[in-house]
Amino acid sequence: MATRVNGADSLYSYSKNSSFQRNAIDAAKELIKEAVFDKLDIEIFSPTNTFRLTDLGCSVGPNTFLAVQNILEAVEHKCRTQAHNSDQVPDFQVFFSDQAGNDFNELFQSIPPDRNYYAMGVPGSFYSRLFPKACLHFVYSSFSLQYLSKVPEQVVDRSSPAWNKGRIHYSNSTHEVVEAYATQYAKDMECFLSARAQEIVGGGLVAFVVPGRPDGTPHAQNIYNMSLDLFGSCLMDMANKGVIAEDRVDSFNLPLYNASLQEVEAIVKSNGCFSIERMEHLPQEKPQPKEVHSTVRAGMENMIREHFGEEILDEVFDTFGKKYEESICVFKSVKAISLFVLLKRNSK
Amino acid sequence: MATRVNGADSLYSYSKNSSFQRNAIDAAKELIKEAVFDKLDIEIFSPTNTFRLTDLGCSVGPNTFLAVQNILEAVEHKCRTQAHNSDQVPDFQVFFSDQAGNDFNELFQSIPPDRNYYAMGVPGSFYSRLFPKACLHFVYSSFSLQYLSKVPEQVVDRSSPAWNKGRIHYSNSTHEVVEAYATQYAKDMECFLSARAQEIVGGGLVAFVVPGRPDGTPHAQNIYNMSLDLFGSCLMDMANKGVIAEDRVDSFNLPLYNASLQEVEAIVKSNGCFSIERMEHLPQEKPQPKEVHSTVRAGMENMIREHFGEEILDEVFDTFGKKYEESICVFKSVKAISLFVLLKRNSK
Repeated sequence: MATRVNGADSLYSYSKNSSFQRNAIDAAKELIKEAVFDKLDIEIFSPTNTFRLTDLGCSVGPNTFLAVQNILEAVEHKCRTQAHNSDQVPDFQVFFSDQAGNDFNELFQSIPPDRNYYAMGVPGSFYSRLFPKACLHFVYSSFSLQYLSKVPEQVVDRSSPAWNKGRIHYSNSTHEVVEAYATQYAKDMECFLSARAQEIVGGGLVAFVVPGRPDGTPHAQNIYNMSLDLFGSCLMDMANKGVIAEDRVDSFNLPLYNASLQEVEAIVKSNGCFSIERMEHLPQEKPQPKEVHSTVRAGMENMIREHFGEEILDEVFDTFGKKYEESICVFKSVKAISLFVLLKRNSK
Repeated sequence: MATRVNGADSLYSYSKNSSFQRNAIDAAKELIKEAVFDKLDIEIFSPTNTFRLTDLGCSVGPNTFLAVQNILEAVEHKCRTQAHNSDQVPDFQVFFSDQAGNDFNELFQSIPPDRNYYAMGVPGSFYSRLFPKACLHFVYSSFSLQYLSKVPEQVVDRSSPAWNKGRIHYSNSTHEVVEAYATQYAKDMECFLSARAQEIVGGGLVAFVVPGRPDGTPHAQNIYNMSLDLFGSCLMDMANKGVIAEDRVDSFNLPLYNASLQEVEAIVKSNGCFSIERMEHLPQEKPQPKEVHSTVRAGMENMIREHFGEEILDEVFDTFGKKYEESICVFKSVKAISLFVLLKRNSK
């Protein structure tokens, strides 16, 4: 499934419609600085005097460049104030990683020319190994780990109790569908942590930000899920009008999961390779109603096109925009949060 | 200047018209195996148990994948037969590097799925630093180091004695033009060696293959130069017919230089960071007359389009193809060679 975001040539390109994600970067910026200052042991990269950082799910910029710059400034500051030899700022090597279908050409052509790091691109899924053993010092990921590696198989299986008829997501769906999604998320996160545990040196850090669900809030009352549910209802409206076949909606499900900190904590503990250094809810400014349309379209257009075809794109996203504005009171009353999670690799 | 080769969507794409370059890889294959077997000290990558290799000027494949596979097979064989713990084959990390304008999207989507290495892309010019200090064990480059970083300034300066009027290359031109090109080549190679000297660990290897000129052969009798001179004459024919302006030809020069082993040796010795482990002429099979047209077009189309415009492409390459066939006796009588050079980084 085409979970990659829109490329630069699109009206609804990710690079032009990612202010919502940047908002989260801003919120996480101070926490990342504190993470570097309080939790990063600069001795871990002194043997080669090279600090190696990756942004997993980097997309095409500009957000990834801002995030990377923030981390490197913090590391540089720490080295200058704390290293035995304060002139000894390490070389910085930054690995921009995303799926092979990401537009790396756009990414490479927009890397800041005055950067103070060596830039590399790494194609592949972060649910599998991407790097040699023990080569990374800092793993960062923003607004990417909510993407599952795949849609859980049961939800598109007509014979399964978890068949997700008439919906495109687990919110407002049956317990079985929610379970299928939660199980897939736990499996994927376990793959993510196991791969990173191999790739990160002892003492290395993992920091990630994802759209989240407050502990105890029902899935159906999570603002991201509510938006996706509303989007699903637009597709069902079109099915009811005969514009698209209903079984096309039945067979379409979004590979997205919005976890709570409780869930993340349980998975990290079960994995056992990392200590949890910090877990927080970040207040997430909600996109303006007009931005919702373009933000959702930038992120979902490829998936919708691939499954339903080019011709429905304008109608479904326009309908969604209108419905969202009609429901604005409901959406205004619900808080949006992101999760900030900081992990440290146990010594090996 | 657009020195990148043609992308996949072109009739004259590099990936479909690079059998000439593959020929050189085949010729170098055995020499590379011997280089790994005789000259590579496997202790240099034992500290992290990761062997880090780059192909500089990798383009889009498939040649780069074949070359990389050949090197890694040789390293794996050496580790299995010589390492203290023969099960301990290292992780392989491969950096595919080319200019930022290279089609990395095509490259990343065609990396063999069953590879036994971690694949990274590195955008940038190999005449400057691309990697942190002391992180590479093997640098490979094939049919790329003949590209200069730029056209020497004097040859497009009307007021200079090295102004290259009516020609697009130094062959058959004045002594001053040849000197300007040779000086630019020496400067560029010095930049290349200085950058690599920083990036390669002591004992690490650099192996490169380039189209070459036998020691003592005049520039004008080198087969590659003869081809470019013939190509230049096609442009001048079009200028004489009024199809293009003559001063457009005057202001166009190819940033290409075909060196001799003597020249390479002098530059390496002057740099002082590497020992010359092996230098050889490789017999270079000449492309078939029909291939010449498409090989030259795949490599030069972007440069010609950028300077002269889309509309002259078919005419100039067709004329070149015809003229080449007319001169086939002359071209048949001249030997084509490539240079194979193997360097080892001095211990630091």
